[in-house]
Amino acid sequence: MIRTIAFDADDTLWVNETYFRDAEDYFCNLLTDYVSFKECQKRLFDMEMRNLPLYGYGIKPFTLSLIECAIDITDGDVSSETITKIIDIGKEMLMAPVDVMKGVEKTLKTLSKKYRLVVATKGDLLDQERKLEKSGLSSYFHHIEVMSDKKPVNYTNLIQHLDIEPAAFLMIGNSLKSDVVPVLEIGGHAYHIPFHTTWAHEQIDFEVTHKQFKAFESVTQLLEVL
Amino acid sequence: MIRTIAFDADDTLWVNETYFRDAEDYFCNLLTDYVSFKECQKRLFDMEMRNLPLYGYGIKPFTLSLIECAIDITDGDVSSETITKIIDIGKEMLMAPVDVMKGVEKTLKTLSKKYRLVVATKGDLLDQERKLEKSGLSSYFHHIEVMSDKKPVNYTNLIQHLDIEPAAFLMIGNSLKSDVVPVLEIGGHAYHIPFHTTWAHEQIDFEVTHKQFKAFESVTQLLEVL
Repeated sequence: MIRTIAFDADDTLWVNETYFRDAEDYFCNLLTDYVSFKECQKRLFDMEMRNLPLYGYGIKPFTLSLIECAIDITDGDVSSETITKIIDIGKEMLMAPVDVMKGVEKTLKTLSKKYRLVVATKGDLLDQERKLEKSGLSSYFHHIEVMSDKKPVNYTNLIQHLDIEPAAFLMIGNSLKSDVVPVLEIGGHAYHIPFHTTWAHEQIDFEVTHKQFKAFESVTQLLEVL
Repeated sequence: MIRTIAFDADDTLWVNETYFRDAEDYFCNLLTDYVSFKECQKRLFDMEMRNLPLYGYGIKPFTLSLIECAIDITDGDVSSETITKIIDIGKEMLMAPVDVMKGVEKTLKTLSKKYRLVVATKGDLLDQERKLEKSGLSSYFHHIEVMSDKKPVNYTNLIQHLDIEPAAFLMIGNSLKSDVVPVLEIGGHAYHIPFHTTWAHEQIDFEVTHKQFKAFESVTQLLEVL
């Protein structure tokens, strides 16, 4: 019944959240004269949430929020050296190598013989295209769909665009909130493979049980059911 | 023969470059103590070109380049008040109203009865989706394609994705460099409608003559030939 499989990219195909958490640690270490590490993390998260509707997801929004947060936390006292360091954090993240997760290539290779595979990811088009290119995984995918958000309406658009029925669509990803719940809501299948770190914004506090839902510990386990 | 018409968005469907030039004027006026207006414009353009491969197109890359350029021009002497003003410029640009150009709606309404219309634009997905929404023009388009660049390869991907032959594809836009030349190169049709202001990066210094090329002064003139 499943004909098309969409993979989330960040923290499903390759490591991502780790880079953001490392950047956050570096940032908060720059500001220890002004606030505690914990308070800094909280202020940054609040700033990101405030800017999210306007900026969207990705490294450039994150960098802009870091700069605004540094000015906010230091009450304008931040030095231009620190701002330059923040700009450099963002650039380094954009240039970072792509660390493909264990078992991903083998799994895609096998699945691509039987299913049409696509990438369905939030974030920035240029950045995600670059990461797909660097990953060496491009050839397994029919196309890459960068979505401005992962709400039910965005998945409905994607499925129409792919010209299939929701029941023929399977989404695989690390976020219950973004990759699983909205897909089940519109009649698709969704499989969850958690990553060890989840951004607070992606966390949900309920259990998912649904006949079109499955959970796995690693990507290679997909081959046992697909 | 033409079946699908792709419209560029910025400065073809709605005003865009004007907002960037206004922001640039505001920015250079903040820095008159350090450099002349003309030198500021030059330094900003150089900074944008240096950051383009990494950041791509759009308002967020522009904002990050403004910040970096302010630090560079002032040799680190820029105040956090100025950085905050720059962040605010970017936010205002993201929230700006969409000024649909004269004759666009009437033209789209007529063309949408005979052709499949799509939007083909560079820049930021969230920002372009928001502008299309604000413009009130969404219903005339089959879909919006945000491209990381407008090189021949990007158009080839778009045309494959639309499942048509290049000869059945017409691109309409204000940039000879991005909307016309690469499309003619891959065998498509391209019509040029200039906007009064063109970003230096989009300027070319040769004439276009090609049997699949036409030039118009305003969008409503399209109805005379399509």
